[in-house]
Amino acid sequence: MKKVYVLFSGGKDSSLSALLLKNLGYDVELVTVNFKILDTYRYAQETADILKMPHHVEFLDREIVERAVEIILRDGYPARGIQYLHRRVIETLADKYKVIADGIRRDDRVPRLSHSEIQSIEMKKNIEYINPLIGFGHRTVKYLVDRYFILSQGESEHILKSDYESEIRALIRAKGKDPRDYFPKHTQSRVIGLKKGEITWALQDHWGKS
Amino acid sequence: MKKVYVLFSGGKDSSLSALLLKNLGYDVELVTVNFKILDTYRYAQETADILKMPHHVEFLDREIVERAVEIILRDGYPARGIQYLHRRVIETLADKYKVIADGIRRDDRVPRLSHSEIQSIEMKKNIEYINPLIGFGHRTVKYLVDRYFILSQGESEHILKSDYESEIRALIRAKGKDPRDYFPKHTQSRVIGLKKGEITWALQDHWGKS
Repeated sequence: MKKVYVLFSGGKDSSLSALLLKNLGYDVELVTVNFKILDTYRYAQETADILKMPHHVEFLDREIVERAVEIILRDGYPARGIQYLHRRVIETLADKYKVIADGIRRDDRVPRLSHSEIQSIEMKKNIEYINPLIGFGHRTVKYLVDRYFILSQGESEHILKSDYESEIRALIRAKGKDPRDYFPKHTQSRVIGLKKGEITWALQDHWGKS
Repeated sequence: MKKVYVLFSGGKDSSLSALLLKNLGYDVELVTVNFKILDTYRYAQETADILKMPHHVEFLDREIVERAVEIILRDGYPARGIQYLHRRVIETLADKYKVIADGIRRDDRVPRLSHSEIQSIEMKKNIEYINPLIGFGHRTVKYLVDRYFILSQGESEHILKSDYESEIRALIRAKGKDPRDYFPKHTQSRVIGLKKGEITWALQDHWGKS
């Protein structure tokens, strides 16, 4: 079966995305992007162990996140900067991997590549880029996440997660600014366990009969 | 587990959509829409038997397809009429079912509801509408379909399938017009078997060890 590399933060969306592709029969490997600003990737490593899926960290050029932070500081809000960063990450991974996926959902505004950006990357780099959750709305994702995962939830300032935001916040802080002036207060979550009793026949062979 | 009603033509996309949701643990029931113009739903019935999933036919008001054909005859091409028909079908099923899915793919231009149309239907009718394949591109869908299904392929004029197009073509013919003047020549396919040897661990409990 084909190998798919899933961009992985340890959060509920990228975990559900990985589970969906695993259930379709893909050979899933989780990839956490890091810019060597914080070692937040170790939270994703822990969640990957819980999911029993192979995982590695991809260290990318710090210039990408520096540029994203410049955009965020100039704009005063994070949308365009995060969008820029995600597109650069996909483009960079596309030089290395043939099939790439992420956990973007239908109701996410950013990061989100347009249909023509996706087609352009797929053609130029001869890869496949999959958004397994982009046809799933908020309620549907919540239902599936609640069914399969145990979450640790909290304010995005405090939650220990390996997403772009942690390193962006650190870099903003390093520049003497307060990230809270740029990021609206919002809740983040990380997968810290599986609800084994809820795992259906579809998942039993992978995680063992419960 | 929640029940999901998957709009089902017997084609590769709706079959793959059903398989994806089944693998996520949903209790899948296949639904074929029919307007009592042709009894094409029996082809979907055959494919549903092959997938070993429950299936029923939903007979909807003929006025819906009559109106779609009016739009197509006026436009000279089928896009807007099919779009209209699909939206009416979703709205009608939303009065009856809590979770509805279809097989629309990322690279389909029609039928396709906009993000705001989807949110409006979900809110107004208090339902969930899922497009499981809308994050999957042409090559990815082709890979998964080839992996799981045996297809019968042919010109859309001849292929025996239970999609909207068959009844729309019949209605255009009944009005003394030639459907080939409205539909561009294109290939259709129907799922006529499973590649059992290729079915992975994820599917074994459902279809039996091969």
